Amino acid sequence: MDFNLRTPGPTPVPEDILQASAAQMINHRGPEFKSLIESVTSKIKEVFQTSNDLYILTSSGTGALESAVVNTISPNDSVLSISVGVFGDRFSQIAHMYGADVTDLKIEAGKAVDPEQIRKELNSNPKISTVIVTHNETSTGITNDLQSIAQVVKGEFDKLLLVDSVSGMGSIPCPVDSWDLDVVASGSQKGWMAQPGLAFISVSKEAWEAQSKATTPRFYFDWEKAEQYLQRGQNPWTPAISVMYAMDKSLTMILNEGLGAVYERHQTIATKTREAVKSIGLELFADEKYASNTVTAVKAPDGINCGELLSNLRTKYNIVLAGGQAYLEGTMFRIGHLGFVPEKEIDEVIDALKKELGR
Amino acid sequence: MDFNLRTPGPTPVPEDILQASAAQMINHRGPEFKSLIESVTSKIKEVFQTSNDLYILTSSGTGALESAVVNTISPNDSVLSISVGVFGDRFSQIAHMYGADVTDLKIEAGKAVDPEQIRKELNSNPKISTVIVTHNETSTGITNDLQSIAQVVKGEFDKLLLVDSVSGMGSIPCPVDSWDLDVVASGSQKGWMAQPGLAFISVSKEAWEAQSKATTPRFYFDWEKAEQYLQRGQNPWTPAISVMYAMDKSLTMILNEGLGAVYERHQTIATKTREAVKSIGLELFADEKYASNTVTAVKAPDGINCGELLSNLRTKYNIVLAGGQAYLEGTMFRIGHLGFVPEKEIDEVIDALKKELGR
Repeated sequence: MDFNLRTPGPTPVPEDILQASAAQMINHRGPEFKSLIESVTSKIKEVFQTSNDLYILTSSGTGALESAVVNTISPNDSVLSISVGVFGDRFSQIAHMYGADVTDLKIEAGKAVDPEQIRKELNSNPKISTVIVTHNETSTGITNDLQSIAQVVKGEFDKLLLVDSVSGMGSIPCPVDSWDLDVVASGSQKGWMAQPGLAFISVSKEAWEAQSKATTPRFYFDWEKAEQYLQRGQNPWTPAISVMYAMDKSLTMILNEGLGAVYERHQTIATKTREAVKSIGLELFADEKYASNTVTAVKAPDGINCGELLSNLRTKYNIVLAGGQAYLEGTMFRIGHLGFVPEKEIDEVIDALKKELGR
Repeated sequence: MDFNLRTPGPTPVPEDILQASAAQMINHRGPEFKSLIESVTSKIKEVFQTSNDLYILTSSGTGALESAVVNTISPNDSVLSISVGVFGDRFSQIAHMYGADVTDLKIEAGKAVDPEQIRKELNSNPKISTVIVTHNETSTGITNDLQSIAQVVKGEFDKLLLVDSVSGMGSIPCPVDSWDLDVVASGSQKGWMAQPGLAFISVSKEAWEAQSKATTPRFYFDWEKAEQYLQRGQNPWTPAISVMYAMDKSLTMILNEGLGAVYERHQTIATKTREAVKSIGLELFADEKYASNTVTAVKAPDGINCGELLSNLRTKYNIVLAGGQAYLEGTMFRIGHLGFVPEKEIDEVIDALKKELGR
């Protein structure tokens, strides 16, 4: 029996997409695959709103973040990392791991970064060449004001800007070209309504310049190999073909609906979720001004054990929510509402919370 | 319409497995996923015939090879790379990329390595700490005598042995523990009868010792993170869940059939394929003594353009074979027969070749 799966990825996959993904295999070096990768790449670029290069990686979103780091950053490069939660911390850890000299601007969980803080950091540390930032932080339910961040990082300081929009792209506006974002990563199990297994990364001209200088060794995630093979309609390594079938189908659905309508749908359901949560006396974890339209983080009510609550929702109501991640465990629970979200599933979540919490 | 897909991976996926893979998503941090990863991991270990640690990576087989290198080898470590074809070359390139001091023992395409050559190299270069080798080389249709290789590398010299059995494991014998193989990589789209998207890697005690000393930076492919999360029934990063569903089903089929029967089935169909190829006057590319039971490489007959032949087979007969890879392009074509191989599909290939080549 299927759950009412309301985690912020993996998200439920519509039946048509599940069926599309179950098609028989094809040769990943043949003409059918060439059509497939060209179709999927071009449609993903429409959602990214970019004419930059775009590659499909067989990995999770974290693999795409690693590809951003190893392709553009050399050991000892000065990097400003802006973290508003667990995924921001992870992006920073990857940069640390590959030897970057990282300045960590760590924002209190539940808040967005103020672009003025970034301006201050970049003014006081002119050696910084690269800024890494999370667009949509699922661990805290925050969406950073990426457009304003990019105006500072790119417009005022002309630094390289690497963006984790793994869970944002496709659900909330993230127009790569008009916001001038150098590298943007996303993943198939988020707003894309497909299964996990593929990640996407866009690469600007400036990012290619950084790539040509970056000395960090790379093989599996090397963009040059991705580009060489894409010119022949291939991936360098055998890709997750069934997830690519799913993406081809889901992208058609997304583009038929229209990006504006998709964003509006996410906004409507997010507003509904936040209002409903507040109406039963629960408190939002995130600063509401920057609350994400993809996930609502709810503070654990006093005296409530989050682990038990989530377990009861699962066993008694067939509803799966997410807990807090890492150092946020026990402080919150999270309701995912990105991708394919029938409104009645949110109603069911609220009803179950009412009953379980006696509200 | 589906093709008679006879490439050495991706392989055709049986209908039951396709359907299993189309199940709805689950929370990858929840109890259902814990059951799934534990079931799949334990069954893969049965096929690997190992009690070593085993991790499931969301990547192609090449990702698993990269994980073998970055987890066990430090820059300037002396590595002996044995290559009998394109995949052996790739394994060597990865070691080169991450700064190893690689001695390349490159064997003529179509031949297997003679363990005596390895003995000679290890005798003449005592600094070598690690040997990397391909078990089953799909680019040339060769299976190396891995047991004898391991007797030299492990039994006589006690070096670390990293094995690419991406296309071998599950189709031909590769008992990890009894052959004393430190690290062995495989991939879901080969004999496992599932779609591409997951790779598997086994890690011995000696490999863990190497891991604890290896200074190469690693994040996405780090085994320590994989181990930490597996203890909670999770992957560190969101995995390709639908391919894991497929693997769970296919492993049940494989283990029900029995490993001995699976190997015998591969041997029978491979022998049949080789005999049929020879019976129509074509020549095997590989030294028949070491010819692989997973793929048959056939020399391009004089005056035949391989690209045209493969294109005609596809458009006129609905049959997809593989060409030669990289520097072998144009010299051969390859008939895959690993995983799910109805005998009549091989008959169809031979019939079509007869007609096209006028034999």
